[in-house]
Amino acid sequence: MMQHYSLKKVGQMERFHRANFINCLTGFKSPVLIGTVNTKGEENLAIFNNLVHLGADPALIGFINRPREAAPHTLANIEATGVYTINHITASFIHQAHQTSAKYPEGVSEFERTGLTPEKIGDCAAPFVAESPVKFSLVLKEVIPIQFNNTYFVIGAITEIYLNSALVEEDGCLDLQKADIVASMGLTDYYAVNKIAKLPYARP
Amino acid sequence: MMQHYSLKKVGQMERFHRANFINCLTGFKSPVLIGTVNTKGEENLAIFNNLVHLGADPALIGFINRPREAAPHTLANIEATGVYTINHITASFIHQAHQTSAKYPEGVSEFERTGLTPEKIGDCAAPFVAESPVKFSLVLKEVIPIQFNNTYFVIGAITEIYLNSALVEEDGCLDLQKADIVASMGLTDYYAVNKIAKLPYARP
Repeated sequence: MMQHYSLKKVGQMERFHRANFINCLTGFKSPVLIGTVNTKGEENLAIFNNLVHLGADPALIGFINRPREAAPHTLANIEATGVYTINHITASFIHQAHQTSAKYPEGVSEFERTGLTPEKIGDCAAPFVAESPVKFSLVLKEVIPIQFNNTYFVIGAITEIYLNSALVEEDGCLDLQKADIVASMGLTDYYAVNKIAKLPYARP
Repeated sequence: MMQHYSLKKVGQMERFHRANFINCLTGFKSPVLIGTVNTKGEENLAIFNNLVHLGADPALIGFINRPREAAPHTLANIEATGVYTINHITASFIHQAHQTSAKYPEGVSEFERTGLTPEKIGDCAAPFVAESPVKFSLVLKEVIPIQFNNTYFVIGAITEIYLNSALVEEDGCLDLQKADIVASMGLTDYYAVNKIAKLPYARP
């Protein structure tokens, strides 16, 4: 039966229960690993589940970085070097990808701690994830502070894309399911997907 | 085999092919229907697939609105009335939900054209979608123009939430799969999901 959750009722939930509840309201997302490097050459890898498509031409992607005190390294590295990589996650390495969300001190490489493999491609300073079948590099365009909760909306422009051409469908869409790329919801739940429809461009 | 798609190569793709290709790089998302009303009381309903979680306390959600000339009604209505609803989509009405992406003139209700049912709840001026099992209302907090492509990052605060309490798991997460809520990718592809893991809070 449909139930009403007022803000008051949500406010009375235990803190982690409420965080899970509100996090799930935005539904399914693709979790990704963002690879960065600091000016000392120390690599960082962190899982994010809040990518958003901003436009195809120019090809722009945004993501939300949590407050600096909670999640300092990715944003600081991107600001310092101007570049980062985004790497999709397959079912075969969700445990390692999830483990990058643990709070390691600065200078500790999540690659080393999780066993994922850093991969340098071309002249991109930031590391890619070798295990990822769909990945791309970006240059930073803008960091927009969100005044309400000290988060940041980070906008980047895609520079290079690496994926298996067998994933590209006739209409340009990607068959991420074929590559076993997962979806996630909230902070803990991972999902496999199964295509149920391709619906054409809608006209009145 | 892994292939390299440079920006030059992407730029040479046919326009719709490129749009699909770049749109898919952000991966899976939950498509949702955003319900609004203008000051004349005319209702609007439009599908969006770029929600992003901004924070749990306060409960803030962002979405991207395309340039005003391409997608005028939702943003104008939100700016005029300050309120909107977000409604998740189940497999049983993906065709109707997708059809709201057609360009109807102002004053034409996508509810009427698609057969979805507007539902007024409480004193929220904006319509909910009766068919949706998970929905919530928001008040507008800020509209941030994105300078690079005339899109807008629209931030709202959740005010009321309506869902079946049977979907709420012990830890506060929502079992959207149980409600047959879909994921989507790009502009055309819809997916059913299947939970494969719940991973605990990660520690170093």
